[in-house]
Amino acid sequence: MTYTLVLLRHGESDWNAKNLFTGWVDVDLTEKGRSEAANGGKLLKEADVLPDVVHTSLLRRAITTAHLALDVADRHWIPVNRSWRLNERHYGALQGKDKKATLEEFGEEQFMTWRRSFDTPPPPIEPGAEFSQDGDPRYADLGDDAPRTECLKDVIERFLPYWEGSIIPDLKDGKTVLVAAHGNSLRAMVKHLDGISDDDIVGLNIPTGMPLVYELDEHFKPTVKGGKYLDPESAKAAAEAVANQGR
Amino acid sequence: MTYTLVLLRHGESDWNAKNLFTGWVDVDLTEKGRSEAANGGKLLKEADVLPDVVHTSLLRRAITTAHLALDVADRHWIPVNRSWRLNERHYGALQGKDKKATLEEFGEEQFMTWRRSFDTPPPPIEPGAEFSQDGDPRYADLGDDAPRTECLKDVIERFLPYWEGSIIPDLKDGKTVLVAAHGNSLRAMVKHLDGISDDDIVGLNIPTGMPLVYELDEHFKPTVKGGKYLDPESAKAAAEAVANQGR
Repeated sequence: MTYTLVLLRHGESDWNAKNLFTGWVDVDLTEKGRSEAANGGKLLKEADVLPDVVHTSLLRRAITTAHLALDVADRHWIPVNRSWRLNERHYGALQGKDKKATLEEFGEEQFMTWRRSFDTPPPPIEPGAEFSQDGDPRYADLGDDAPRTECLKDVIERFLPYWEGSIIPDLKDGKTVLVAAHGNSLRAMVKHLDGISDDDIVGLNIPTGMPLVYELDEHFKPTVKGGKYLDPESAKAAAEAVANQGR
Repeated sequence: MTYTLVLLRHGESDWNAKNLFTGWVDVDLTEKGRSEAANGGKLLKEADVLPDVVHTSLLRRAITTAHLALDVADRHWIPVNRSWRLNERHYGALQGKDKKATLEEFGEEQFMTWRRSFDTPPPPIEPGAEFSQDGDPRYADLGDDAPRTECLKDVIERFLPYWEGSIIPDLKDGKTVLVAAHGNSLRAMVKHLDGISDDDIVGLNIPTGMPLVYELDEHFKPTVKGGKYLDPESAKAAAEAVANQGR
């Protein structure tokens, strides 16, 4: 008896295409991103990996990716759960900034620290700043606990209660669970699942629109470390492209 | 203190466009249907009628209508519930048949009885027939209770437990509730809300893609009978068009 967990990173967004730091800014998918999502659904259907329930972040790019992928896979009708705990990492004051300009202004070392350091968040976003989420009703319940910046360590901390409290119960029910989320919330999940060290997670990149399937044992640990991409060759090429963003 | 309930009938589907009886057959929206859904979302946003939770059927045309409308209204992130109890009326053996050909074959009286009679269902669909839902995993839990045909009375009977058990609790929580569903499941709801007689419901048509807003009192009865369309003039013209289908 194993449990099946499928991770799906949203397809290309407007700000991926423009090379801007996005974080919690709620940008839409590009046409390419929509195609990636539909292709993810096609891969699920062809592999007969059919989700029984889906969990998404509160961000449009993950929500629409889930909708499009599930529609193609004929699983549009499954139950849906959403949580801010699956959101992308909050990029703090970098939200809305150009990645290349940020690299040039602050240099390679600072840039890579902000992008990939495990425990150093970018500077917090100012209250009321253009790309803050102040006043956004979907985070109203969080009050002052709403993050103003996050490092990957912060993402893991806010993700884990959702893993334990919402995803594991669905797995225990024998459901194939789809998580449609973001580069960093999925890296947090993969780090937790595969027991990747704080140092090694820095080098791990997750491609967009490629279903990553984990079979989990009775302790909810992967039977095969790293899981299995349904389209492994495309996934490898895409992950390398993500690693080179901002160059 | 009133409660706010918003009803939204899905936009034009492939089979609306082809003038076929659809029922539980899971056809997609046309491009026009997608535009109608998006326009419904625009009307919600402009009127500042912002759903806190959405309930849909298990059918793609309602699910996608909700997704597109909520995306335009910036409410894509709200909680989602789905139930077969919000499905379109099961059209029995008529599913997949041309409306005009059916009218010609069986005559006006039989045709209108099948379309609009309160308590006479069409003949049941045969087990394993092309347009039956036999083997569809989304209805597997229903077993032999899955309908093989329905009249409006049957729709009301299977809808009411969901109204009491799932929609009213959300209203009681003070949430603005959006129900994205179908011509006949919404007629069932409106009949119940407005206390329309079995005879009078025959003449009531609900237009596609037009948000119909009900303010409900403490007994969950409308403060204004019939509710209020956000775009009343278009709604009136559209309802007349629905009444003339099959001509």
